[in-house]
Amino acid sequence: MVSKSEVKFIRSLALGKFRNKHKQFVAEGLKIVEEMVLTGGFKYKLFVSVSQLGKLSPNLGHVNFEVVSDNEMKQMSQLTTPPGVLAVVDIPDYSFSLAEMKTGLHVVLDGIRDPGNLGTIIRTAEWFGIQHIFISPDTVDPFHPKVVQATMGSVFRVQLHETELSSFLHQCQNDGFKVYGAVMDGANIYQTTLKTVGAFLVIGSESHGISDAIKTLIKHPVSIPAYTSGAVRTESLNASVATAILLAEFRRLGA
Amino acid sequence: MVSKSEVKFIRSLALGKFRNKHKQFVAEGLKIVEEMVLTGGFKYKLFVSVSQLGKLSPNLGHVNFEVVSDNEMKQMSQLTTPPGVLAVVDIPDYSFSLAEMKTGLHVVLDGIRDPGNLGTIIRTAEWFGIQHIFISPDTVDPFHPKVVQATMGSVFRVQLHETELSSFLHQCQNDGFKVYGAVMDGANIYQTTLKTVGAFLVIGSESHGISDAIKTLIKHPVSIPAYTSGAVRTESLNASVATAILLAEFRRLGA
Repeated sequence: MVSKSEVKFIRSLALGKFRNKHKQFVAEGLKIVEEMVLTGGFKYKLFVSVSQLGKLSPNLGHVNFEVVSDNEMKQMSQLTTPPGVLAVVDIPDYSFSLAEMKTGLHVVLDGIRDPGNLGTIIRTAEWFGIQHIFISPDTVDPFHPKVVQATMGSVFRVQLHETELSSFLHQCQNDGFKVYGAVMDGANIYQTTLKTVGAFLVIGSESHGISDAIKTLIKHPVSIPAYTSGAVRTESLNASVATAILLAEFRRLGA
Repeated sequence: MVSKSEVKFIRSLALGKFRNKHKQFVAEGLKIVEEMVLTGGFKYKLFVSVSQLGKLSPNLGHVNFEVVSDNEMKQMSQLTTPPGVLAVVDIPDYSFSLAEMKTGLHVVLDGIRDPGNLGTIIRTAEWFGIQHIFISPDTVDPFHPKVVQATMGSVFRVQLHETELSSFLHQCQNDGFKVYGAVMDGANIYQTTLKTVGAFLVIGSESHGISDAIKTLIKHPVSIPAYTSGAVRTESLNASVATAILLAEFRRLGA
Protein backbone atom coordinates (compact mmCIF):
# COMPACT_ATOMS: atom_id res chain seq x y z
CA MET A 1 0.00 0.00 0.00
CA VAL A 2 1.47 3.31 -1.06
CA SER A 3 0.54 6.39 0.98
CA LYS A 4 -0.94 9.54 -0.47
CA SER A 5 2.05 11.54 0.69
CA GLU A 6 4.41 9.12 -1.06
CA VAL A 7 2.44 9.44 -4.30
CA LYS A 8 2.64 13.20 -3.93
CA PHE A 9 6.37 13.03 -3.25
CA ILE A 10 7.04 10.90 -6.31
CA ARG A 11 4.97 13.20 -8.43
CA SER A 12 6.99 16.17 -7.16
CA LEU A 13 10.16 14.67 -8.66
CA ALA A 14 8.90 15.83 -12.05
CA LEU A 15 10.34 19.18 -11.03
CA GLY A 16 14.07 19.88 -10.97
CA LYS A 17 13.99 21.67 -7.63
CA PHE A 18 12.60 18.60 -5.88
CA ARG A 19 15.06 16.28 -7.66
CA ASN A 20 17.87 18.54 -6.45
CA LYS A 21 16.48 18.71 -2.94
CA HIS A 22 15.90 15.00 -2.48
CA LYS A 23 18.67 13.73 -4.80
CA GLN A 24 16.23 11.33 -6.40
CA PHE A 25 14.64 11.00 -9.83
CA VAL A 26 12.01 8.88 -11.55
CA ALA A 27 12.67 6.28 -14.25
CA GLU A 28 9.61 4.89 -16.02
CA GLY A 29 8.92 2.05 -18.40
CA LEU A 30 9.89 -1.61 -18.41
CA LYS A 31 12.88 -1.14 -20.70
CA ILE A 32 14.44 1.75 -18.76
CA VAL A 33 13.86 0.12 -15.37
CA GLU A 34 15.27 -3.18 -16.63
CA GLU A 35 18.38 -1.39 -17.83
CA MET A 36 18.82 0.12 -14.36
CA VAL A 37 18.40 -3.23 -12.63
CA LEU A 38 20.69 -5.06 -15.05
CA THR A 39 23.34 -2.34 -14.82
CA GLY A 40 23.27 -2.62 -11.05
CA GLY A 41 24.63 -0.45 -8.25
CA PHE A 42 21.60 1.81 -7.95
CA LYS A 43 19.54 2.45 -4.84
CA TYR A 44 15.90 2.51 -5.86
CA LYS A 45 12.31 1.72 -4.98
CA LEU A 46 10.17 0.06 -7.63
CA PHE A 47 6.42 0.33 -8.20
CA VAL A 48 4.37 -1.81 -10.58
CA SER A 49 0.71 -1.23 -11.40
CA VAL A 50 -1.78 -4.10 -11.05
CA SER A 51 -2.50 -4.28 -14.76
CA GLN A 52 1.21 -4.55 -15.58
CA LEU A 53 1.94 -7.40 -13.17
CA GLY A 54 1.67 -10.20 -15.71
CA LYS A 55 3.90 -8.42 -18.17
CA LEU A 56 7.10 -8.17 -16.14
CA SER A 57 10.07 -9.77 -17.84
CA PRO A 58 12.25 -12.46 -16.23
CA ASN A 59 14.93 -9.77 -15.78
CA LEU A 60 12.85 -8.31 -12.98
CA GLY A 61 11.98 -11.67 -11.46
CA HIS A 62 14.25 -11.37 -8.43
CA VAL A 63 13.50 -7.72 -7.74
CA ASN A 64 11.36 -6.39 -4.90
CA PHE A 65 8.55 -4.07 -5.87
CA GLU A 66 5.38 -2.61 -4.49
CA VAL A 67 2.11 -3.20 -6.31
CA VAL A 68 -0.03 -0.10 -6.78
CA SER A 69 -3.43 0.45 -8.34
CA ASP A 70 -3.63 1.80 -11.87
CA ASN A 71 -5.01 5.00 -10.44
CA GLU A 72 -2.12 5.41 -8.01
CA MET A 73 0.33 4.77 -10.86
CA LYS A 74 -1.39 7.41 -12.92
CA GLN A 75 -0.91 9.92 -10.11
CA MET A 76 2.77 9.05 -9.68
CA SER A 77 3.60 8.96 -13.35
CA GLN A 78 5.10 11.82 -15.30
CA LEU A 79 3.84 10.43 -18.59
CA THR A 80 0.46 10.87 -20.26
CA THR A 81 0.20 7.12 -20.77
CA PRO A 82 1.85 5.59 -17.69
CA PRO A 83 3.78 2.45 -18.66
CA GLY A 84 2.94 0.92 -15.26
CA VAL A 85 6.53 0.37 -14.13
CA LEU A 86 8.14 3.20 -12.18
CA ALA A 87 11.31 3.43 -10.13
CA VAL A 88 12.35 6.17 -7.74
CA VAL A 89 16.12 6.19 -8.01
CA ASP A 90 18.82 7.88 -5.94
CA ILE A 91 20.84 10.22 -8.15
CA PRO A 92 24.28 8.63 -8.40
CA ASP A 93 27.22 10.63 -7.16
CA TYR A 94 30.14 9.93 -9.48
CA SER A 95 33.68 10.90 -8.79
CA PHE A 96 36.45 11.14 -11.36
CA SER A 97 40.19 11.42 -11.47
CA LEU A 98 41.89 13.31 -14.27
CA ALA A 99 44.87 11.00 -13.93
CA GLU A 100 42.72 7.97 -14.69
CA MET A 101 41.01 9.80 -17.54
CA LYS A 102 44.30 10.26 -19.42
CA THR A 103 43.64 7.23 -21.63
CA GLY A 104 40.12 8.21 -22.67
CA LEU A 105 38.03 10.48 -24.83
CA HIS A 106 35.46 12.50 -22.88
CA VAL A 107 32.53 14.75 -23.73
CA VAL A 108 31.77 18.23 -22.39
CA LEU A 109 28.36 19.85 -22.91
CA ASP A 110 28.09 23.63 -22.73
CA GLY A 111 24.44 24.65 -22.44
CA ILE A 112 22.42 21.90 -24.14
CA ARG A 113 18.81 22.90 -23.48
CA ASP A 114 16.65 20.31 -25.21
CA PRO A 115 15.99 17.17 -23.12
CA GLY A 116 15.69 15.01 -26.25
CA ASN A 117 19.07 16.21 -27.48
CA LEU A 118 20.77 15.56 -24.14
CA GLY A 119 19.24 12.11 -23.88
CA THR A 120 20.31 11.24 -27.41
CA ILE A 121 23.83 12.53 -26.74
CA ILE A 122 24.14 10.33 -23.63
CA ARG A 123 22.86 7.29 -25.58
CA THR A 124 25.25 7.97 -28.47
CA ALA A 125 28.15 8.59 -26.10
CA GLU A 126 27.69 5.17 -24.54
CA TRP A 127 27.64 3.56 -27.99
CA PHE A 128 31.01 5.13 -28.67
CA GLY A 129 32.48 4.06 -25.35
CA ILE A 130 32.48 7.45 -23.62
CA GLN A 131 32.52 6.99 -19.83
CA HIS A 132 32.43 10.59 -18.60
CA ILE A 133 30.28 13.52 -19.68
CA PHE A 134 30.84 16.92 -18.05
CA ILE A 135 27.89 19.27 -18.21
CA SER A 136 27.64 22.99 -17.54
CA PRO A 137 25.22 24.17 -14.85
CA ASP A 138 22.98 25.69 -17.56
CA THR A 139 22.60 22.37 -19.41
CA VAL A 140 19.22 20.69 -18.90
CA ASP A 141 19.10 18.34 -15.89
CA PRO A 142 20.18 14.85 -17.04
CA PHE A 143 17.61 13.36 -14.66
CA HIS A 144 14.74 15.27 -16.27
CA PRO A 145 12.15 12.60 -17.24
CA LYS A 146 12.44 13.32 -20.98
CA VAL A 147 16.22 12.99 -20.83
CA VAL A 148 16.05 9.71 -18.94
CA GLN A 149 13.56 8.40 -21.53
CA ALA A 150 15.65 9.47 -24.53
CA THR A 151 18.80 7.79 -23.18
CA MET A 152 17.08 4.38 -23.42
CA GLY A 153 18.99 3.35 -20.30
CA SER A 154 22.41 4.85 -21.05
CA VAL A 155 21.83 7.40 -18.28
CA PHE A 156 22.62 4.54 -15.88
CA ARG A 157 25.96 3.73 -17.48
CA VAL A 158 27.60 6.98 -18.54
CA GLN A 159 28.99 9.01 -15.64
CA LEU A 160 27.55 12.50 -15.62
CA HIS A 161 29.30 15.35 -13.82
CA GLU A 162 27.88 18.84 -13.44
CA THR A 163 30.85 21.20 -13.40
CA GLU A 164 31.68 24.83 -13.88
CA LEU A 165 33.36 24.29 -17.25
CA SER A 166 35.72 27.23 -17.45
CA SER A 167 38.00 26.32 -14.55
CA PHE A 168 37.61 22.62 -15.25
CA LEU A 169 38.78 22.86 -18.86
CA HIS A 170 41.56 25.21 -17.84
CA GLN A 171 42.87 22.58 -15.46
CA CYS A 172 42.49 19.84 -18.08
CA GLN A 173 44.62 21.81 -20.51
CA ASN A 174 47.28 22.37 -17.88
CA ASP A 175 47.25 18.62 -17.32
CA GLY A 176 48.02 18.01 -21.00
CA PHE A 177 44.57 17.05 -22.27
CA LYS A 178 43.61 18.12 -25.78
CA VAL A 179 40.41 20.16 -25.89
CA TYR A 180 38.43 19.87 -29.14
CA GLY A 181 35.28 21.85 -29.74
CA ALA A 182 32.56 21.77 -32.39
CA VAL A 183 32.63 25.23 -33.95
CA MET A 184 31.11 26.40 -37.25
CA ASP A 185 34.43 27.62 -38.68
CA GLY A 186 36.58 24.89 -37.12
CA ALA A 187 39.02 22.71 -39.01
CA ASN A 188 37.44 20.11 -41.30
CA ILE A 189 37.40 16.93 -39.19
CA TYR A 190 38.49 14.88 -42.18
CA GLN A 191 41.56 17.04 -42.72
CA THR A 192 42.81 17.34 -39.17
CA THR A 193 44.49 15.02 -36.70
CA LEU A 194 42.15 13.81 -33.99
CA LYS A 195 43.81 12.53 -30.86
CA THR A 196 41.58 9.99 -29.17
CA VAL A 197 43.57 9.57 -25.98
CA GLY A 198 43.44 12.17 -23.22
CA ALA A 199 41.01 14.36 -25.08
CA PHE A 200 37.80 16.28 -24.51
CA LEU A 201 35.18 17.11 -27.12
CA VAL A 202 33.14 20.21 -26.25
CA ILE A 203 29.65 20.64 -27.74
CA GLY A 204 27.79 23.93 -27.43
CA SER A 205 24.14 24.85 -27.12
CA GLU A 206 21.55 24.38 -29.87
CA SER A 207 21.08 28.07 -30.57
CA HIS A 208 24.34 29.75 -29.61
CA GLY A 209 27.01 27.07 -29.86
CA ILE A 210 29.90 27.13 -27.42
CA SER A 211 29.79 30.14 -25.07
CA ASP A 212 32.43 32.87 -25.44
CA ALA A 213 34.06 32.07 -22.09
CA ILE A 214 34.60 28.45 -23.12
CA LYS A 215 35.54 29.20 -26.73
CA THR A 216 38.82 30.76 -25.63
CA LEU A 217 39.74 27.41 -24.09
CA ILE A 218 39.15 25.42 -27.29
CA LYS A 219 42.59 24.89 -28.74
CA HIS A 220 41.33 22.53 -31.44
CA PRO A 221 38.14 23.82 -33.08
CA VAL A 222 36.67 21.27 -35.49
CA SER A 223 33.70 21.21 -37.86
CA ILE A 224 31.77 18.81 -40.04
CA PRO A 225 31.87 19.81 -43.71
CA ALA A 226 28.53 20.23 -45.50
CA TYR A 227 28.38 18.33 -48.77
CA THR A 228 27.61 21.23 -51.06
CA SER A 229 28.44 24.82 -50.43
CA GLY A 230 26.35 27.23 -52.49
CA ALA A 231 23.02 25.45 -52.70
CA VAL A 232 22.65 24.37 -49.10
CA ARG A 233 20.94 26.90 -46.88
CA THR A 234 21.09 24.83 -43.68
CA GLU A 235 23.23 26.71 -41.23
CA SER A 236 24.02 23.93 -38.86
CA LEU A 237 23.38 20.40 -37.73
CA ASN A 238 21.32 19.46 -34.70
CA ALA A 239 23.55 19.32 -31.58
CA SER A 240 23.06 15.60 -31.00
CA VAL A 241 23.68 14.83 -34.67
CA ALA A 242 26.90 16.86 -34.66
CA THR A 243 28.07 15.09 -31.51
CA ALA A 244 27.35 11.72 -33.10
CA ILE A 245 29.24 12.41 -36.32
CA LEU A 246 32.24 13.77 -34.42
CA LEU A 247 32.36 10.84 -31.99
CA ALA A 248 32.04 8.37 -34.88
CA GLU A 249 35.00 10.01 -36.60
CA PHE A 250 37.12 10.04 -33.42
CA ARG A 251 36.40 6.32 -33.03
CA ARG A 252 36.97 5.46 -36.69
CA LEU A 253 40.46 6.94 -36.41
CA GLY A 254 41.18 5.45 -33.03
CA ALA A 255 40.00 1.95 -34.01
CA MET B 1 -9.28 41.11 -40.79
CA VAL B 2 -9.25 37.34 -40.52
CA SER B 3 -12.61 35.59 -40.27
CA LYS B 4 -13.54 33.17 -37.52
CA SER B 5 -13.97 30.39 -40.04
CA GLU B 6 -10.48 31.03 -41.42
CA VAL B 7 -8.99 30.86 -37.92
CA LYS B 8 -10.84 27.61 -37.39
CA PHE B 9 -9.62 26.27 -40.73
CA ILE B 10 -5.98 27.10 -39.96
CA ARG B 11 -6.29 25.53 -36.56
CA SER B 12 -7.67 22.35 -38.16
CA LEU B 13 -4.41 21.91 -40.10
CA ALA B 14 -2.85 20.67 -36.86
CA LEU B 15 -4.47 17.36 -37.78
CA GLY B 16 -3.14 15.14 -40.54
CA LYS B 17 -6.55 14.38 -42.00
CA PHE B 18 -7.18 18.07 -42.68
CA ARG B 19 -3.68 18.59 -44.08
CA ASN B 20 -4.33 15.68 -46.45
CA LYS B 21 -7.75 16.95 -47.40
CA HIS B 22 -6.75 20.54 -48.10
CA LYS B 23 -3.15 19.86 -49.18
CA GLN B 24 -1.94 22.64 -46.91
CA PHE B 25 0.13 22.85 -43.76
CA VAL B 26 1.20 25.43 -41.21
CA ALA B 27 4.73 26.77 -40.75
CA GLU B 28 5.35 28.90 -37.66
CA GLY B 29 8.12 31.12 -36.40
CA LEU B 30 10.18 33.86 -38.02
CA LYS B 31 13.11 31.60 -38.87
CA ILE B 32 11.04 28.85 -40.54
CA VAL B 33 8.86 31.31 -42.46
CA GLU B 34 11.92 33.25 -43.61
CA GLU B 35 13.48 30.05 -44.88
CA MET B 36 10.34 29.36 -46.90
CA VAL B 37 10.27 32.84 -48.39
CA LEU B 38 13.99 32.86 -49.17
CA THR B 39 13.82 29.38 -50.72
CA GLY B 40 10.99 30.54 -52.96
CA GLY B 41 8.49 28.70 -55.11
CA PHE B 42 5.88 28.16 -52.41
CA LYS B 43 2.27 29.24 -52.48
CA TYR B 44 1.37 30.55 -49.05
CA LYS B 45 -0.58 33.03 -46.98
CA LEU B 46 1.23 34.80 -44.17
CA PHE B 47 -0.16 36.08 -40.87
CA VAL B 48 1.69 38.29 -38.39
CA SER B 49 0.42 39.22 -34.94
CA VAL B 50 0.28 42.88 -33.91
CA SER B 51 2.91 42.49 -31.21
CA GLN B 52 5.35 40.89 -33.66
CA LEU B 53 5.05 43.60 -36.33
CA GLY B 54 8.14 45.57 -35.31
CA LYS B 55 10.29 42.45 -35.17
CA LEU B 56 10.05 41.30 -38.76
CA SER B 57 13.41 40.99 -40.45
CA PRO B 58 14.34 42.74 -43.73
CA ASN B 59 14.01 39.32 -45.41
CA LEU B 60 10.26 39.61 -45.10
CA GLY B 61 10.18 43.28 -46.12
CA HIS B 62 8.71 42.70 -49.59
CA VAL B 63 6.23 40.03 -48.53
CA ASN B 64 2.47 40.49 -48.22
CA PHE B 65 0.94 39.50 -44.94
CA GLU B 66 -2.20 39.96 -42.94
CA VAL B 67 -2.01 41.49 -39.47
CA VAL B 68 -4.00 39.65 -36.82
CA SER B 69 -4.57 40.30 -33.13
CA ASP B 70 -2.52 38.40 -30.59
CA ASN B 71 -5.66 36.57 -29.60
CA GLU B 72 -6.42 35.50 -33.17
CA MET B 73 -2.81 34.33 -33.55
CA LYS B 74 -3.15 32.31 -30.37
CA GLN B 75 -6.21 30.57 -31.80
CA MET B 76 -4.49 29.78 -35.11
CA SER B 77 -1.22 28.65 -33.61
CA GLN B 78 -0.30 25.06 -32.96
CA LEU B 79 2.29 26.06 -30.39
CA THR B 80 1.85 26.77 -26.68
CA THR B 81 3.78 30.01 -27.07
CA PRO B 82 2.82 31.33 -30.52
CA PRO B 83 5.82 32.96 -32.18
CA GLY B 84 3.48 35.44 -33.88
CA VAL B 85 4.48 34.62 -37.48
CA LEU B 86 2.45 31.91 -39.19
CA ALA B 87 2.18 30.79 -42.80
CA VAL B 88 -0.40 28.50 -44.34
CA VAL B 89 1.53 26.77 -47.10
CA ASP B 90 0.40 24.60 -50.01
CA ILE B 91 1.99 21.16 -49.72
CA PRO B 92 4.44 20.96 -52.61
CA ASP B 93 3.93 18.22 -55.15
CA TYR B 94 7.35 17.02 -56.21
CA SER B 95 7.99 14.77 -59.15
CA PHE B 96 11.13 12.74 -59.72
CA SER B 97 12.80 10.84 -62.49
CA LEU B 98 14.91 7.79 -61.72
CA ALA B 99 17.01 8.57 -64.78
CA GLU B 100 17.96 11.96 -63.36
CA MET B 101 18.58 10.45 -59.95
CA LYS B 102 21.34 8.18 -61.27
CA THR B 103 24.07 10.58 -60.18
CA GLY B 104 22.85 11.03 -56.63
CA LEU B 105 22.59 9.48 -53.19
CA HIS B 106 19.04 9.32 -51.86
CA VAL B 107 17.38 8.47 -48.57
CA VAL B 108 14.46 6.09 -47.94
CA LEU B 109 12.60 6.07 -44.61
CA ASP B 110 10.68 2.96 -43.61
CA GLY B 111 8.35 3.75 -40.73
CA ILE B 112 9.96 6.63 -38.81
CA ARG B 113 7.38 7.50 -36.14
CA ASP B 114 8.89 10.29 -34.08
CA PRO B 115 8.35 13.78 -35.54
CA GLY B 116 11.58 15.07 -33.99
CA ASN B 117 13.55 12.25 -35.60
CA LEU B 118 12.01 12.84 -39.02
CA GLY B 119 12.64 16.58 -38.80
CA THR B 120 16.25 16.03 -37.77
CA ILE B 121 16.75 13.52 -40.60
CA ILE B 122 15.45 16.01 -43.17
CA ARG B 123 17.72 18.75 -41.76
CA THR B 124 20.74 16.44 -41.75
CA ALA B 125 19.94 15.17 -45.24
CA GLU B 126 20.04 18.70 -46.60
CA TRP B 127 23.39 19.32 -44.92
CA PHE B 128 24.75 16.31 -46.77
CA GLY B 129 23.32 17.37 -50.11
CA ILE B 130 20.48 14.84 -50.31
CA GLN B 131 17.76 16.11 -52.67
CA HIS B 132 15.19 13.31 -52.49
CA ILE B 133 13.76 11.47 -49.49
CA PHE B 134 11.26 8.66 -50.07
CA ILE B 135 8.99 7.89 -47.14
CA SER B 136 6.74 4.93 -46.46
CA PRO B 137 3.03 5.59 -45.89
CA ASP B 138 3.46 4.64 -42.20
CA THR B 139 6.18 7.24 -41.62
CA VAL B 140 5.01 10.31 -39.69
CA ASP B 141 3.64 13.10 -41.92
CA PRO B 142 6.55 15.39 -42.90
CA PHE B 143 4.21 18.36 -42.65
CA HIS B 144 3.32 17.59 -39.03
CA PRO B 145 4.06 20.82 -37.10
CA LYS B 146 6.77 19.20 -34.96
CA VAL B 147 8.51 17.84 -38.05
CA VAL B 148 8.42 21.22 -39.80
CA GLN B 149 9.88 22.84 -36.68
CA ALA B 150 12.67 20.29 -36.27
CA THR B 151 13.80 20.67 -39.91
CA MET B 152 14.72 24.33 -39.23
CA GLY B 153 13.60 25.11 -42.78
CA SER B 154 15.07 22.12 -44.63
CA VAL B 155 11.53 20.81 -45.21
CA PHE B 156 11.29 23.49 -47.91
CA ARG B 157 14.40 22.36 -49.74
CA VAL B 158 14.53 18.58 -49.63
CA GLN B 159 12.02 16.89 -51.93
CA LEU B 160 9.81 14.50 -49.99
CA HIS B 161 7.96 11.68 -51.75
CA GLU B 162 5.49 9.37 -50.04
CA THR B 163 5.75 6.02 -51.80
CA GLU B 164 4.91 2.40 -51.31
CA LEU B 165 8.52 1.35 -50.75
CA SER B 166 8.45 -2.28 -51.79
CA SER B 167 7.62 -1.84 -55.48
CA PHE B 168 9.63 1.38 -55.63
CA LEU B 169 12.86 -0.18 -54.37
CA HIS B 170 12.29 -3.20 -56.57
CA GLN B 171 12.19 -0.94 -59.59
CA CYS B 172 15.26 0.98 -58.41
CA GLN B 173 17.24 -2.22 -58.16
CA ASN B 174 16.15 -3.27 -61.65
CA ASP B 175 17.37 0.12 -62.82
CA GLY B 176 20.82 -0.56 -61.41
CA PHE B 177 20.69 1.50 -58.21
CA LYS B 178 22.51 0.18 -55.16
CA VAL B 179 20.24 -0.20 -52.14
CA TYR B 180 21.98 0.17 -48.78
CA GLY B 181 20.14 -0.30 -45.51
CA ALA B 182 21.01 0.34 -41.86
CA VAL B 183 20.74 -3.07 -40.20
CA MET B 184 22.08 -4.19 -36.80
CA ASP B 185 24.16 -7.03 -38.26
CA GLY B 186 25.12 -5.25 -41.48
CA ALA B 187 28.65 -4.87 -42.77
CA ASN B 188 30.86 -2.46 -40.81
CA ILE B 189 30.61 0.80 -42.77
CA TYR B 190 34.32 1.40 -42.35
CA GLN B 191 35.18 -1.95 -43.91
CA THR B 192 32.87 -1.93 -46.89
CA THR B 193 32.73 -0.07 -50.17
CA LEU B 194 30.11 2.66 -50.22
CA LYS B 195 28.99 3.77 -53.66
CA THR B 196 27.78 7.34 -53.51
CA VAL B 197 26.40 7.56 -57.03
CA GLY B 198 23.07 6.00 -57.94
CA ALA B 199 22.44 4.74 -54.44
CA PHE B 200 19.70 4.63 -51.84
CA LEU B 201 20.17 4.46 -48.08
CA VAL B 202 17.21 2.88 -46.27
CA ILE B 203 16.59 3.70 -42.58
CA GLY B 204 14.06 1.73 -40.55
CA SER B 205 11.76 2.62 -37.70
CA GLU B 206 12.92 3.52 -34.19
CA SER B 207 11.63 0.37 -32.54
CA HIS B 208 11.62 -2.32 -35.24
CA GLY B 209 14.21 -1.23 -37.79
CA ILE B 210 13.60 -1.98 -41.46
CA SER B 211 10.41 -3.99 -42.03
CA ASP B 212 10.70 -7.59 -43.23
CA ALA B 213 9.19 -6.85 -46.64
CA ILE B 214 11.81 -4.19 -47.31
CA LYS B 215 14.70 -6.09 -45.73
CA THR B 216 14.65 -8.63 -48.56
CA LEU B 217 15.35 -5.77 -50.98
CA ILE B 218 18.44 -4.53 -49.10
CA LYS B 219 21.37 -5.94 -51.05
CA HIS B 220 23.91 -3.96 -49.04
CA PRO B 221 23.19 -4.06 -45.31
CA VAL B 222 25.50 -1.77 -43.35
CA SER B 223 26.01 -0.97 -39.68
CA ILE B 224 27.89 1.46 -37.46
CA PRO B 225 30.33 -0.31 -35.16
CA ALA B 226 30.02 0.37 -31.43
CA TYR B 227 33.34 1.32 -29.84
CA THR B 228 33.50 -1.38 -27.22
CA SER B 229 31.82 -4.72 -27.41
CA GLY B 230 31.36 -6.37 -24.02
CA ALA B 231 30.83 -3.43 -21.71
CA VAL B 232 28.33 -1.48 -23.78
CA ARG B 233 24.73 -2.40 -23.18
CA THR B 234 23.23 0.10 -25.64
CA GLU B 235 21.48 -1.90 -28.29
CA SER B 236 21.20 0.72 -30.96
CA LEU B 237 21.60 4.31 -31.95
CA ASN B 238 18.72 6.74 -32.35
CA ALA B 239 17.38 6.63 -35.94
CA SER B 240 18.35 10.21 -36.77
CA VAL B 241 21.80 9.72 -35.28
CA ALA B 242 22.37 6.55 -37.31
CA THR B 243 21.25 8.32 -40.49
CA ALA B 244 23.63 11.18 -39.79
CA ILE B 245 26.67 8.99 -39.18
CA LEU B 246 25.96 6.95 -42.32
CA LEU B 247 25.42 10.00 -44.52
CA ALA B 248 28.60 11.59 -43.15
CA GLU B 249 30.54 8.46 -44.05
CA PHE B 250 29.05 8.26 -47.56
CA ARG B 251 30.04 11.89 -48.10
CA ARG B 252 33.51 11.51 -46.61
CA LEU B 253 34.24 8.76 -49.12
CA GLY B 254 32.60 10.54 -52.01
CA ALA B 255 34.33 13.85 -51.38
